[in-house]
Amino acid sequence: MKYSIGIDFGTLSGRALLVEVETGREVATAVKMYSHAVMDEVLPDGVTKLPPDWALQHPRDYLEVLAETVPAVLAEARVDPADVVGVAVDFTACTMIPVLADGTPLCFLPEYEHEPHAYVKLWKHHAAQPEADKLNALAQTMDPVRLSRYGGKVSSEWLYPKAWQLLNEAPALYARADKLIEAGDWIVLMLTGNERRNACAAGYKAMWHKREGYPSKAFFRALDPRLENIVEEKLSPDVYALGGKAGEISEAGARLCGLLPGTAVGMANIDAHVAVPAAGITTPGRMLMIMGTSTCHMLLGSEEKLVPGTCGVVEDGIIGGLFGYEAGQSCVGDHFDWFVKNLVPASYRDEAAARGISIHKLLREKVASQKPGQSGLLALDWWNGNRSVLVDADLSGLFIGMSLTTKPEELYRALIEATAFGTRMIIDTFERYGVPVDELIAAGGIAEKDEMMMQIYADVTHREIRISGSAQACALGSAMFGAVAAGKAAGGYDTIGEAAEHMSSLKDTVYRPIPENSAIYDRLYEEYTILHDTFGRGANDCMKRLRALKREQNA
Amino acid sequence: MKYSIGIDFGTLSGRALLVEVETGREVATAVKMYSHAVMDEVLPDGVTKLPPDWALQHPRDYLEVLAETVPAVLAEARVDPADVVGVAVDFTACTMIPVLADGTPLCFLPEYEHEPHAYVKLWKHHAAQPEADKLNALAQTMDPVRLSRYGGKVSSEWLYPKAWQLLNEAPALYARADKLIEAGDWIVLMLTGNERRNACAAGYKAMWHKREGYPSKAFFRALDPRLENIVEEKLSPDVYALGGKAGEISEAGARLCGLLPGTAVGMANIDAHVAVPAAGITTPGRMLMIMGTSTCHMLLGSEEKLVPGTCGVVEDGIIGGLFGYEAGQSCVGDHFDWFVKNLVPASYRDEAAARGISIHKLLREKVASQKPGQSGLLALDWWNGNRSVLVDADLSGLFIGMSLTTKPEELYRALIEATAFGTRMIIDTFERYGVPVDELIAAGGIAEKDEMMMQIYADVTHREIRISGSAQACALGSAMFGAVAAGKAAGGYDTIGEAAEHMSSLKDTVYRPIPENSAIYDRLYEEYTILHDTFGRGANDCMKRLRALKREQNA
Repeated sequence: MKYSIGIDFGTLSGRALLVEVETGREVATAVKMYSHAVMDEVLPDGVTKLPPDWALQHPRDYLEVLAETVPAVLAEARVDPADVVGVAVDFTACTMIPVLADGTPLCFLPEYEHEPHAYVKLWKHHAAQPEADKLNALAQTMDPVRLSRYGGKVSSEWLYPKAWQLLNEAPALYARADKLIEAGDWIVLMLTGNERRNACAAGYKAMWHKREGYPSKAFFRALDPRLENIVEEKLSPDVYALGGKAGEISEAGARLCGLLPGTAVGMANIDAHVAVPAAGITTPGRMLMIMGTSTCHMLLGSEEKLVPGTCGVVEDGIIGGLFGYEAGQSCVGDHFDWFVKNLVPASYRDEAAARGISIHKLLREKVASQKPGQSGLLALDWWNGNRSVLVDADLSGLFIGMSLTTKPEELYRALIEATAFGTRMIIDTFERYGVPVDELIAAGGIAEKDEMMMQIYADVTHREIRISGSAQACALGSAMFGAVAAGKAAGGYDTIGEAAEHMSSLKDTVYRPIPENSAIYDRLYEEYTILHDTFGRGANDCMKRLRALKREQNA
Repeated sequence: MKYSIGIDFGTLSGRALLVEVETGREVATAVKMYSHAVMDEVLPDGVTKLPPDWALQHPRDYLEVLAETVPAVLAEARVDPADVVGVAVDFTACTMIPVLADGTPLCFLPEYEHEPHAYVKLWKHHAAQPEADKLNALAQTMDPVRLSRYGGKVSSEWLYPKAWQLLNEAPALYARADKLIEAGDWIVLMLTGNERRNACAAGYKAMWHKREGYPSKAFFRALDPRLENIVEEKLSPDVYALGGKAGEISEAGARLCGLLPGTAVGMANIDAHVAVPAAGITTPGRMLMIMGTSTCHMLLGSEEKLVPGTCGVVEDGIIGGLFGYEAGQSCVGDHFDWFVKNLVPASYRDEAAARGISIHKLLREKVASQKPGQSGLLALDWWNGNRSVLVDADLSGLFIGMSLTTKPEELYRALIEATAFGTRMIIDTFERYGVPVDELIAAGGIAEKDEMMMQIYADVTHREIRISGSAQACALGSAMFGAVAAGKAAGGYDTIGEAAEHMSSLKDTVYRPIPENSAIYDRLYEEYTILHDTFGRGANDCMKRLRALKREQNA
């Protein structure tokens, strides 16, 4: 029996999953929480304070994941490392590390221990907004088509704003860094000794395009003369397609993770993107929704279409030979957690405790039998701004329709419905701009647990929804890419399509739209759309003015 | 020492207040809860069910108030009834009783014991909406100026819709009724033997006008031929000014309440209106806000102005010689009660309990130090529809500006601010149509207890706010009218102005607008106004469509 291992690096922990290559059976898993978690207030020295909006990580935590989880799954499964044909990793992105030529992170050097810019800038480091704003302004005039591949706006989370902030605030450290590297590619470098920039992160987070490459030197020069040669100096002109082999475990890599030297290592990938083939999606028309605190929408298409307000379209960015589309809702499960934390009365807490169920479950129960529209409520799901399709962090939440008989569970359900309308808005936008969405597949905790919510999503979107078979889709996806890196001859697969065919699965559950509910939801969605456009597209910028006043009064 | 007694008939109880005429000192008070409270589900027989939206009362409860509370205050104060120079009553309105010629309520007759229409239709009986709709439609064409004195719309709570419903649904009983009488005038009839229709109820609830009288026979005929002579047949063409003497306590009246025959009885009044002189207001420019579950706004003017969306303007309707204006917000304290009942988390309940304070107080404390605009929130105060200035029961609530850090106390404060904006909208409307509002005086539980709220009102309205000196302003106002009914020669006063001068008082507290807060609230009020007009004046009828869908799905 042959095995492969996927290693999924999330925001707070890393997870290794050991999988049977032939069947996709998940044999053993191990999770390691990052020792430093997210550093957003102070460096590990305990004294160096971080400004607002910073979010750093410590690369040593990633090495601990390798050192603990890989041996743990081998031991748990009693698998001989010789039977592991391949390994691959996925990572949050853009999660950027400044390193020396040999890959040593600058923060490992004693002289940079107290320098925030020497650490990993985590994906949700949001302190480079001024740089992002300037980059967007320039791209609108100098490189508008490229910009429109990203829905018309580059996020402060992406590589160039982060790199430029580093240059602006710590130029000496920027000069000292031989490379600025995605953490996923850094893990590959640590395991193989090869620097192999993956097309997924380069495409979605560094504006790389398969046919046009990176933005031009002229563009970077216009941004800042010191950035003119950033690609050659700090990145790498070479970008490698997903599904390829990045190299083999080196002696050093073997010491890091306990796998045998020579084991095939796949190209790194972004966590959300690698979940697509893990859900069996290797062809156009099926959208994966990864539903958690926020939701990522991943979709394949056969052509490059420019879809406003989505996060990006990258050729070969998810599956070789196809265009990978990404969109997102910045607040989904977070709405419900906010509600339960803040607005559920004591009597409900007591009832849930007495019955031994969660408050979420109690609220859903209380409102499960309501018909669409019965509460008279509607919400805009923007408690954390709107990612797609408005790309506006300054938007905020809205509830409308309350009366003196409105119950907490009705507001809770209105939030669920609002996130469903937000998803429909994304689907409608894809279709309006020529990217078909025929069927939905959901993954993540919400998808597995919340039947009422999934039925509402089916009703609202008029589409069948199936549920990803794996509860650890990202790690499974990486394991699949590990098997592909090994290749058929070595006991793996030659393509990700083949791997998906054998290793991915869906649950038996299918949520089918109920026509009478869909008809009512169409009417509510029309109201949602009017409010969405009124407050999101400039007719009434009330939310932005309230936000500006809030900042002013909190200053 | 001379005394007068005011008897205030509210929605759930009646209260007598014995007052020193010379000083207004409140000597003794007694409250009697109505034995039948509000009958909205079943008659006292326990078997006759009431349809939705009905609200009845039993007139025997009112007689119990006379029998218990008046002797109680005399006894408590150890006052000789001979030293009581006058008495007057105020009542909710329109609260209508069908009676025989001698005043016997039809529901006292055994044959009508099981007939809902034989009972008192309480002010909040809302089952005559179809009749109100037809009346409004007709008045718009046949008597538009009169209608515009009532803000352009007559409520289903008023006299003609109620009378017409009675006629439509129980024509034999309508025929049997010699009179349809306001409960306040009925009490006067019981005490004096005189039927004296008061100008306040006639003006505000029966479209009576000092110069034009009641609507024309032609109007009533067009409404329903059977109503042509309603004024002569069921009401009375004679309407009596406030401040006059309705009569003297009869032998029968003396048996009812324990006062001496011959004691002066003032004209009855509506409860909210009688509070105006009790707060010392007898001249134009000072608005009384009676703040409780809802808020009534009472204002005097020197001219008749037609102010859209207000509840009515009646010459001599509050104080003789002036035009009395009324407006209202249908949901004020009810918002906060709804919030506390539904949306306050267990930890807050625990904290309030541990500290021995109310949850309202805890919420206000938590947010008292916030600056205007600091929460980024705004609300529309329409949980129970909007009375003034939109006159639309189908409107509903709105919250905007929520983020994942929004706290319950911030939403609570946003509701307080929304009611303040609603009051400013009423003030602005009065002023726009030529009725000045220079100063505010507040009465009611909220006005006395909630300093933060009163300061917000001062800041939002840019006006000083003083607080009525009496916690039982309605009963005090009636006592003042009792003293005026007696007249100066008998130890009372000749005018309500004189009575107010001696008997009314304000607390020392003055809430003064804080300019920097007012400046911020101006910006928030601008946002409120845009939302108010968008959702309230037809640009986006989302609330009405949601309400309609709610009705449909609940049917």
